[in-house]
Amino acid sequence: MKKLWGGRFGEETEKAVESFTSSLPFDVRLWRYDIEGSMAHVAMLGKQKILSANEVRKILKGLKEIREEIENGKFRFMPEYEDVHMNIESALIKKAGPAGGKLHTARSRNDQVALDLRLFLRDEIKSVIKLIKWLQRVLVSLAGKHIRTIMPGYTHLQKAQPVLLSHHLLAYYDMLERDRQRLEACLTRINVLPLGSAALAGTTLPIDRKHVARLLKFPSVSENSIDAVSDRDFVIEFISAAGIIMVHLSRLSEELVLWSSDEFSFIELPDAFTTGSSIMPQKKNPDVPELVRGKSGRVFGNLMAMLTVMKGLPLSYNRDMQEDKEPLFDTVDTVKSCLHIITLMLPKIKFNKKAMKEGTGRAYLTATDVAEYLVRKGMPFREAHKVTGMMVKHCIGQKKKIESLEPSEMKRFSKMIGEDIFHFITAEASVENKKSFGGTSGKNVSARLRSLKKGGEK
Amino acid sequence: MKKLWGGRFGEETEKAVESFTSSLPFDVRLWRYDIEGSMAHVAMLGKQKILSANEVRKILKGLKEIREEIENGKFRFMPEYEDVHMNIESALIKKAGPAGGKLHTARSRNDQVALDLRLFLRDEIKSVIKLIKWLQRVLVSLAGKHIRTIMPGYTHLQKAQPVLLSHHLLAYYDMLERDRQRLEACLTRINVLPLGSAALAGTTLPIDRKHVARLLKFPSVSENSIDAVSDRDFVIEFISAAGIIMVHLSRLSEELVLWSSDEFSFIELPDAFTTGSSIMPQKKNPDVPELVRGKSGRVFGNLMAMLTVMKGLPLSYNRDMQEDKEPLFDTVDTVKSCLHIITLMLPKIKFNKKAMKEGTGRAYLTATDVAEYLVRKGMPFREAHKVTGMMVKHCIGQKKKIESLEPSEMKRFSKMIGEDIFHFITAEASVENKKSFGGTSGKNVSARLRSLKKGGEK
Amino acid sequence: MKKLWGGRFGEETEKAVESFTSSLPFDVRLWRYDIEGSMAHVAMLGKQKILSANEVRKILKGLKEIREEIENGKFRFMPEYEDVHMNIESALIKKAGPAGGKLHTARSRNDQVALDLRLFLRDEIKSVIKLIKWLQRVLVSLAGKHIRTIMPGYTHLQKAQPVLLSHHLLAYYDMLERDRQRLEACLTRINVLPLGSAALAGTTLPIDRKHVARLLKFPSVSENSIDAVSDRDFVIEFISAAGIIMVHLSRLSEELVLWSSDEFSFIELPDAFTTGSSIMPQKKNPDVPELVRGKSGRVFGNLMAMLTVMKGLPLSYNRDMQEDKEPLFDTVDTVKSCLHIITLMLPKIKFNKKAMKEGTGRAYLTATDVAEYLVRKGMPFREAHKVTGMMVKHCIGQKKKIESLEPSEMKRFSKMIGEDIFHFITAEASVENKKSFGGTSGKNVSARLRSLKKGGEK
Amino acid sequence: MKKLWGGRFGEETEKAVESFTSSLPFDVRLWRYDIEGSMAHVAMLGKQKILSANEVRKILKGLKEIREEIENGKFRFMPEYEDVHMNIESALIKKAGPAGGKLHTARSRNDQVALDLRLFLRDEIKSVIKLIKWLQRVLVSLAGKHIRTIMPGYTHLQKAQPVLLSHHLLAYYDMLERDRQRLEACLTRINVLPLGSAALAGTTLPIDRKHVARLLKFPSVSENSIDAVSDRDFVIEFISAAGIIMVHLSRLSEELVLWSSDEFSFIELPDAFTTGSSIMPQKKNPDVPELVRGKSGRVFGNLMAMLTVMKGLPLSYNRDMQEDKEPLFDTVDTVKSCLHIITLMLPKIKFNKKAMKEGTGRAYLTATDVAEYLVRKGMPFREAHKVTGMMVKHCIGQKKKIESLEPSEMKRFSKMIGEDIFHFITAEASVENKKSFGGTSGKNVSARLRSLKKGGEK
Repeated sequence: MKKLWGGRFGEETEKAVESFTSSLPFDVRLWRYDIEGSMAHVAMLGKQKILSANEVRKILKGLKEIREEIENGKFRFMPEYEDVHMNIESALIKKAGPAGGKLHTARSRNDQVALDLRLFLRDEIKSVIKLIKWLQRVLVSLAGKHIRTIMPGYTHLQKAQPVLLSHHLLAYYDMLERDRQRLEACLTRINVLPLGSAALAGTTLPIDRKHVARLLKFPSVSENSIDAVSDRDFVIEFISAAGIIMVHLSRLSEELVLWSSDEFSFIELPDAFTTGSSIMPQKKNPDVPELVRGKSGRVFGNLMAMLTVMKGLPLSYNRDMQEDKEPLFDTVDTVKSCLHIITLMLPKIKFNKKAMKEGTGRAYLTATDVAEYLVRKGMPFREAHKVTGMMVKHCIGQKKKIESLEPSEMKRFSKMIGEDIFHFITAEASVENKKSFGGTSGKNVSARLRSLKKGGEK
Repeated sequence: MKKLWGGRFGEETEKAVESFTSSLPFDVRLWRYDIEGSMAHVAMLGKQKILSANEVRKILKGLKEIREEIENGKFRFMPEYEDVHMNIESALIKKAGPAGGKLHTARSRNDQVALDLRLFLRDEIKSVIKLIKWLQRVLVSLAGKHIRTIMPGYTHLQKAQPVLLSHHLLAYYDMLERDRQRLEACLTRINVLPLGSAALAGTTLPIDRKHVARLLKFPSVSENSIDAVSDRDFVIEFISAAGIIMVHLSRLSEELVLWSSDEFSFIELPDAFTTGSSIMPQKKNPDVPELVRGKSGRVFGNLMAMLTVMKGLPLSYNRDMQEDKEPLFDTVDTVKSCLHIITLMLPKIKFNKKAMKEGTGRAYLTATDVAEYLVRKGMPFREAHKVTGMMVKHCIGQKKKIESLEPSEMKRFSKMIGEDIFHFITAEASVENKKSFGGTSGKNVSARLRSLKKGGEK
Repeated sequence: MKKLWGGRFGEETEKAVESFTSSLPFDVRLWRYDIEGSMAHVAMLGKQKILSANEVRKILKGLKEIREEIENGKFRFMPEYEDVHMNIESALIKKAGPAGGKLHTARSRNDQVALDLRLFLRDEIKSVIKLIKWLQRVLVSLAGKHIRTIMPGYTHLQKAQPVLLSHHLLAYYDMLERDRQRLEACLTRINVLPLGSAALAGTTLPIDRKHVARLLKFPSVSENSIDAVSDRDFVIEFISAAGIIMVHLSRLSEELVLWSSDEFSFIELPDAFTTGSSIMPQKKNPDVPELVRGKSGRVFGNLMAMLTVMKGLPLSYNRDMQEDKEPLFDTVDTVKSCLHIITLMLPKIKFNKKAMKEGTGRAYLTATDVAEYLVRKGMPFREAHKVTGMMVKHCIGQKKKIESLEPSEMKRFSKMIGEDIFHFITAEASVENKKSFGGTSGKNVSARLRSLKKGGEK
Repeated sequence: MKKLWGGRFGEETEKAVESFTSSLPFDVRLWRYDIEGSMAHVAMLGKQKILSANEVRKILKGLKEIREEIENGKFRFMPEYEDVHMNIESALIKKAGPAGGKLHTARSRNDQVALDLRLFLRDEIKSVIKLIKWLQRVLVSLAGKHIRTIMPGYTHLQKAQPVLLSHHLLAYYDMLERDRQRLEACLTRINVLPLGSAALAGTTLPIDRKHVARLLKFPSVSENSIDAVSDRDFVIEFISAAGIIMVHLSRLSEELVLWSSDEFSFIELPDAFTTGSSIMPQKKNPDVPELVRGKSGRVFGNLMAMLTVMKGLPLSYNRDMQEDKEPLFDTVDTVKSCLHIITLMLPKIKFNKKAMKEGTGRAYLTATDVAEYLVRKGMPFREAHKVTGMMVKHCIGQKKKIESLEPSEMKRFSKMIGEDIFHFITAEASVENKKSFGGTSGKNVSARLRSLKKGGEK
């Protein structure tokens, strides 16, 4: 089949080459944006008298028909036409005749595909942001339910200090908040119209790029035609923001896997979100968080793929850049599905408050409170740390909890210790006394929740 | 729909979870290996009297029917059955009744999927090796045609010394030879039967794993059941070997892109392997090598994905490991298609011998020959290097070639220079005199080609 | 040696463990920020009456002395003290006695190291931004000098259309502009005070975090203590922004390498920025751009390292996170040195205007202008593309340039072609007529330069 | 300072360029291999009469002196001499006069650095292999001590079936065995002499490469001079093998971290291998396994770095390749230190056998044994799985263990169940009955241990 660009060529494209170079199997996904971009382009060509009103009408009519056919599954994409753009243009030419042949006036696939990708990603980022906000709301709601649930806080997976489950959950809120910010920042760099840069140098025809930008709601227009067709920064920036989202979800998933182990037993995952074993009849596996954790790999991989593709390419457009689409699409799909499934699952998790609370009763989680008690009595922190360390060592030897020591036993470690110490070394007191801004006290967490709920839909 | 593992479960799986966790869309590709593995397993169960001869017959008959149905496109894979294994087993139970329910005796999906993946990759590596050998043969044949074609050799993309095109092409032969070796080495570690490790601990039933190994042509059997179901080393090892192949192909592609630039004009790519521009009528773009070069990114990305998935997973099987398939499949497809397309293209490239030869006439490519000439006359190399450097500087100033200097002019730089120097400073002489083993002289290259041809099919 | 945290321990740390776990060899680099943070912390402890004025005075005096000693190379860092924090605190205790033991009140190394890293990175990002702006100014200045230099523009490394060198250089200006924006965005997320989060839960002591924030010029304070000590988003975000900078520099470097090849000969690199060969006396190698291009690898690697470190870590702090520093430091150093060296080199490059101009005379670079000429005469673009393609094919066959065709010869391809076509198909006209916004015409480029110069120091 | 290659240059190298391009800070590490290689080279030049016996003697004497000076810390490496090679050669010229200037005869830095790197890596891989074998022996010894220690085996971090701790430990033995094999395979590709390839084309001087190979114990000699100086496959292959080692060590580390959590309490790490908290006096943190787990990141990053460096480089040597050394050195150091520290730590871990055993008493770990019991009685496995699943569900509802069910209660699920079932559903019986090859039964494990001990030093 003769290619639209085939004027200078003597031979037809080898079959194997056709399938090797074709981007249709994946870029077909951009069809809606391709048509949207073409419509704006053609409207501008009409306004500028580059096309006649009649030609514009014919083209728009043709494009609308094609859109409907695709929506209704009636459009036949043909592999011979390499990509989604050539498929749509060829179909248009069949429908609109010579007018159709004018659609590509003052345009190249180089700026066209840059446009399509930006339109696509702009939409998808908005979806991701919505999913993030939804997950944030779920976290706020869950935190509200667990405003009094005490659990062990960990460092190094060793029990460190008692914290509120709500405080722990809100740590994820803050991670997601940064994710949202990064995506918003990324959007400002996506929202720049590349169309009109043509192949790389601009065009000699009297186009009006700002008009196209208005039609497609781009707040700005690219300043340099060579950069506009060479640039895939926005793809890399998005995938790296997505990579950080996946870091966060992988950490949450790791915790859900740990917490649903028999040893922790902090949570029970809903049956509907787990699967069984083909051989072991008793198993109930946390597949969803495992898969989410594993899927961080593919997003990191997509990031590496894109960085590799772009490394060392001379300007301007090179065909290597066609390899941008699959990593981008896969990243979008992965991040969306992971956010979605976690958001569905979280509210259905059964938290085992008793196990969490009991978890704070071993392992000397209030030792820091003892040290700070001594500091308040005037002991330098380093000494207080040492004294408390000795008490803990003594307790381990005696297999006792700190709070089970006799006051007289305690006094052996420091004369400063009085009976009032018992007000400070329960898990509840430990939590409540962490009143420093950002600390885990119920007062702090409640205040934060109030402010988040008031902020409402951001 | 009730799951085969659903005995202990109260709720059915959420729809979104089903689609999130399903591996069917990609692991369906393993169907042939899944059936092959099941047949060997069941034959062994029969031999060990765990199943009756009648049961074995029914199961084998059922599996064969399923195989035929899949081959003929008549089998309906059902998304509700999560993966390819459950689809085939469910279909078998429908066909073979209670006997079908005995197929999974003494087996878990954990060892089953490890088996399927090894069978798959074993086959695919053999295909990749065949493609490598084909490309090597094409290189040998091409080198044979260019046994006298002189071109500039480069370091730092600066012209360095004249070399034979055939010698340059055979550099790729040697890279591919190492690639082949790495794949063979990888094969020895794939060729270990995991089946019979069951979930992770082995089984209480009297199976005979060595018999299964014989049936499936595995030279060895895994020694530790926990390792056998936890291990994906072979996937990582293969992808990293594939990554190095892509490094090699990306280097060759870079050279093809450079050489087909107007500035180099060393080659002309066949029309059938290039494409045109949608806007610039004169363009003929080296899309194939560009895409090959770009596709290195996806293989590196797949490698990073797999390393990330496996990092820090406790033993034994974790669901994260389901994320092994897509990077593996994509790597197999990418490496095969890139090797294939390059192999098809190379013989059709038109080499512009004249441009290559002329390329050696500028830029003082024989300066090292001058220095070595002086060394043979007794000058220490460092001094010879300095003297020749001065001559080159002089030539640049005078806009002359070395060989256009008058003997008297030369003697100003060193008295050691005699008229015999002109025998050493043509491109032809420079090449011919590189007789050190592995050097670029025609004698060497011819000998190498003879030995490679004699070696024949490896 | 007894550790500051050693109260509960029975054995001393194994020597091999000490050196394995020590971060001193690299985190010593943070010393200035560690002291700065401690000073602000202690001033706040004084204001809040947690320490007495006298204690504060002693501590500040001690910290200043330590700072001077380090500046003068007189401070002895001791490997036994694991890290920079413990080294400074231990020295302080020696100087200030028991008061020194109070420095660590209401603080943990977890929030302290998060603070130090943010202070460090905040400073370094400002340096990177300055370097970017410097490079941008150099580009603007260079573009100003080449406002009339015509060169071939490329797509697929095939000559595409004539462009201005100034326009090409400004493409890099725009890439760097996005880099700058990304770093500014990253700064807003770094500029959040973590100190006061203590180990993970906050503290029971009445600290005033906002006061510390004011002293250290942090516009905001972290909201959640668990997140504050668990978070390394800012490290990943910075490295990924740096990765994109390296993509841009690697592309520029690739072009410099290409352009200084004998085949292109578009530029000559200054002797002072190249090196010679140990064996080939004539060589002058573009080492600087080669190394910059290669160094993209280490930054991508650092990004992968950090993503891997953070993947799947449960909250809050884990020792794995100590692995954040080396990739971060290496990225900072790499990006700064690459930006710096490129900025020094660019103004000293000799551009070979003649070779660039001549490069536009082959390869039919104005074919698109012919097509757009026909479009202006009313021919549909697709037809114009085809007609021009035929002309190019004809020219290749005849070994002619388009502009050397006789008008009558041209008319054979289309009756629409008139003699006026010769006004459109010189390289100069082609450039000048690309007046679309962002296009390569001199008018556009001049206007851009005026606006960039007016913008001045951003 | 005048460079050894400076003949043709007009300006001296810019200071900033000198420090940017210098590899001395890291390649100094190769000094011993550089001297070793030079000695063999010079001995061959003597044998071939390219140098006189007297010259050879002078050079060898000079090189030996330099070696001693470096060993004794008396050699002054000078930054102006770019790299380790030029430093040693310059020092030699000072010592040996004009003879010293003959060392570099028939050699380029391109083949010299390839040689040094291969000599270095050959040695280091042997060290890594030794460390692997040491760790394997420690695992065998530890397994020998725990031949009766029963623990829960996990899939999905859910308890799955009882296994022997010794069996679990030997899973790591098998992983390391594959690591060892991969390194051995890598060695065969390193053990190829590149020297004599000179810059890229070979040399005109009558060298004898096979003699050099014998002197340096290389079993083979590179076949193609262009490939020999362009190739860094062996660096990538080693780093990827190292990456898989780090995957294994990160998995082991994850388990050690989990097992030393209060919730698991399976092990206690030795005090000497843990550290405390700067704020929490009770903490004892598993820093060593955390750091090992984290360090997987840097090795993966190094791999990505090297792949990126090599991607798309045209032949032959390019300066980008200087970026091979730091990732390689860092990988060698990381892998060695991680193997070493884990090997030191493992024998000192206190295993809490009681906690491990108790861990098998909850969570229905012998459900699969029940199912296989039913299979042996003739029930199809799928039905047995379902029946057992119902029993587990019943037990969960009743908060009973399977083994606490009354026989009559059991019979309600299947008439096939007899009193003999109680012989099969203890943890001990479950383990003992896993007699399939590679299964966890004590008999199997003992046999494996005997065979491994007999194999002795491999």
